[in-house]
Amino acid sequence: METIVQAEHLRTFVEQVYQTIGAPKEYAQTSAEVMVEANLCGVDSHGVRMLPGFVTLARNGKINPKGKIGVIKDTPVIAHLDGGLAPGHVVSVRAMKMAVEKARGVGIGFVLVRNSTHWGRAAYYPVIAAREGCLGICFVNTESNMPYWGTRAPRIGNNPLSIGAPRASGDPVVLDMAMSQAAFFKIVLYNREGKKVPLGWGVDEQGRPTDDPAAIIKSKRLVPAGQHKGSGLALMIDILTGVLSGGMFCGELLNEAKGMPHATAYSQAFLAIDIASFLPLEAFKRRVDELLTYVKEGPLAEGFSEISIPGERSWREKALRERVGIPLDEITLNELRALAEQTGIPSFPVSAIEP
Amino acid sequence: METIVQAEHLRTFVEQVYQTIGAPKEYAQTSAEVMVEANLCGVDSHGVRMLPGFVTLARNGKINPKGKIGVIKDTPVIAHLDGGLAPGHVVSVRAMKMAVEKARGVGIGFVLVRNSTHWGRAAYYPVIAAREGCLGICFVNTESNMPYWGTRAPRIGNNPLSIGAPRASGDPVVLDMAMSQAAFFKIVLYNREGKKVPLGWGVDEQGRPTDDPAAIIKSKRLVPAGQHKGSGLALMIDILTGVLSGGMFCGELLNEAKGMPHATAYSQAFLAIDIASFLPLEAFKRRVDELLTYVKEGPLAEGFSEISIPGERSWREKALRERVGIPLDEITLNELRALAEQTGIPSFPVSAIEP
Repeated sequence: METIVQAEHLRTFVEQVYQTIGAPKEYAQTSAEVMVEANLCGVDSHGVRMLPGFVTLARNGKINPKGKIGVIKDTPVIAHLDGGLAPGHVVSVRAMKMAVEKARGVGIGFVLVRNSTHWGRAAYYPVIAAREGCLGICFVNTESNMPYWGTRAPRIGNNPLSIGAPRASGDPVVLDMAMSQAAFFKIVLYNREGKKVPLGWGVDEQGRPTDDPAAIIKSKRLVPAGQHKGSGLALMIDILTGVLSGGMFCGELLNEAKGMPHATAYSQAFLAIDIASFLPLEAFKRRVDELLTYVKEGPLAEGFSEISIPGERSWREKALRERVGIPLDEITLNELRALAEQTGIPSFPVSAIEP
Repeated sequence: METIVQAEHLRTFVEQVYQTIGAPKEYAQTSAEVMVEANLCGVDSHGVRMLPGFVTLARNGKINPKGKIGVIKDTPVIAHLDGGLAPGHVVSVRAMKMAVEKARGVGIGFVLVRNSTHWGRAAYYPVIAAREGCLGICFVNTESNMPYWGTRAPRIGNNPLSIGAPRASGDPVVLDMAMSQAAFFKIVLYNREGKKVPLGWGVDEQGRPTDDPAAIIKSKRLVPAGQHKGSGLALMIDILTGVLSGGMFCGELLNEAKGMPHATAYSQAFLAIDIASFLPLEAFKRRVDELLTYVKEGPLAEGFSEISIPGERSWREKALRERVGIPLDEITLNELRALAEQTGIPSFPVSAIEP
C-alpha cells in the first residue's frame, strides 16, 4: 500500500512547520516550495524527508529559521553573502536571483555565499536562471563523505554541481550531480533487496572496492564518480566554495556535523550567464534542441530502452505527480506525523492506493 | 634506449615549423611554449606529438596559422571572440588573459570563443589565471568520441574542463580532466603490453562493456567518467561552449573531423574569478594549503603509496624534465624528423640514455 499526498497539502504543512520554529512567512513559503518541488520531480531524498532533520538542526541552533542574509559585497557584477545560517533554500533562491539580475545587466553574474545551510535539491536553482534566459551554474561544498582517491577515510565531500539551460521545445535541460558514483540511499535500497551493488559504488573500511552493500553502509564510504576524476573535481569545488567564500571546507564541516542530521555552514556559488549577450535567445534554444535531438537519436546500447538527457525524467515525473500526487514512504510519513503532533499543527490529508 | 631532447631545442624547432607554415613569430612562440610545456609536465599526448597533425590541418586549410582573432563583443566583464581558426594555443592564451584582466577590474571575467582550434593541454590556461591571483576555469567542446550513456555510437565529445587555483606553498593546484574515464592512449598502451583493461574504460561496437583493449581500439568508444555523470556533464559543456558561442557542437565537429587528424572549429570558454574580491589573496592561498594538507594526510588505501592532488605529478615531472630533458618516443621522433626534412629546417639535437 502506498500513501499519496497532494503537493499543495504538503506545501501548506511544510510552511506551517517552518513558521512554528520561527521562520518568517516568506522564508517558510520559499522552503516549502523548493522542498515539495523536489518531491514532485521524483527526488524524494531531497524533499520533505529532510524536514525533520531541519527542525532538529534549528532546535540545536545550527540553522537559524529567521537568519538574516548579510551582504559582505555587492557590485553590478558580483556579490559576496553571509547566509547567517538561514534556511539554505531561501539563501540559494536569493543568491541565484541576484546572479541572474547581474547577468541581465552586464552579461554575467556571480554570487558566492558562506554560512548557508542545506539547499535541498540543487537543480532548483539553475532552473530559475534558465527560465530567465540565462545559463545557470551552481556549486556547493559538503562535509567529507568520500575517501579522496587513494585514501581509505572520508577526506572530501561529494560536492554537487548543477547546470541548467533553456530549450525551445520543453522545460530546461538541467544536470544535477554529486561527485560520488552512487547515492547513499540507492545502496541502502540494494541492501534491503539483498542484491549486490556493482563494483565502484563504495569501499569497505579498508578502502577496498566491494560489491557488498552492507559493507558500504557500515563504512559510509562512497566512491567518487570516475574515481580520481570525481574526487579531483570535488576538491576544486571546495576551493571555489568553502575556501573562496571564507567559509568552512569539508573537514571542518565534518566536525560541524557531529551528532547532527548533517552539517550546516555550507558554502555555495551561483553563476548566471545571460544568453542574449552572446546569441539571440530563441536561436540558442533551438540549437539546444538540435543538440539534444542528435544525442537522443543515438542507437541504443544493449539493456537500454531510451536515452535520457539531464532533467528529462524529473520533468516527466513532475507532470505525473502534479496529477496523481506524491507518494510518501512509511518512515517519512510517520516522521512528518510525529512532527505535526510535536508542533501542534494539523497533519495533511493522504489517500491510499492499493498496489 | 630512450631519446632525450632539451626543452629549449624543442621550442626552437616548433617555433620554426610554425613560421614555415605561415604563422607570425608571436603566434609561433606561443604555440611552441604551450606545446613544450605539456611535454615538460609529462603530458606527452598533448605536446609536440600533435605538431605533425597541426601541419596537416594547416595544409588542408583547417587551421589558419596566421588567422586573425575577431572580436564580436568586448565589455569590461565579458568578451565573445571568433578564433578565425588560428592556432588554438594562441587563441586560448589571449582569451584567458582577457578574462583575467576583466576579473581584475570587476571581480569576474568571462570570454567565450568559437572557431578556435585544438588548445593542446587544457591545464596551461587556468595556470595563467592562478599565477595572476585568480581562480581560472576553462571548458572546451570536441567531436563526438564517447557513446552518450545508453547509446552504442559516439554522440558526445569527452569535453575537457580545467580548473586552477594558487596555493601558498607551491605551484598552483590544477585539475585537467576529460569526461571519459580513460585516455585513448592509455588503452593503446595496455593493448601493446597484452593486458586487459578494467571494465568501465570502453565498450565494444555493440556498446557492451569490455576488458579487451583491442575491442575498444576497434570501436573507438570510450566510456564516460562516472558513466551517465560524465556524459551529462559533457553535454552541458557542449551547450556552454559549442551552442552558446554560436559555433559547432559535437556531431557537427565529427563531420568536420572526417579524414583529418582531428576536428577544428572548437569552442572554448574561459572564466576568471579575482580572488581578492572575496578574500585577501594570501589568506586564500594559506587556506588552500590547509585543505590540501588535510586531504594528503588521509590514511592510504591498499595499493596506494601517496595521495596525489591535481597537478602535483605534473609539477614534479616538470622539475625533473627541466633538469634532464624530455624523453621522446620513437614514433614522435621520426615524425618530427620527417617534418624537419619536409620544411627544410634543421632538426633538434638529441641525446640517448641507455636503459
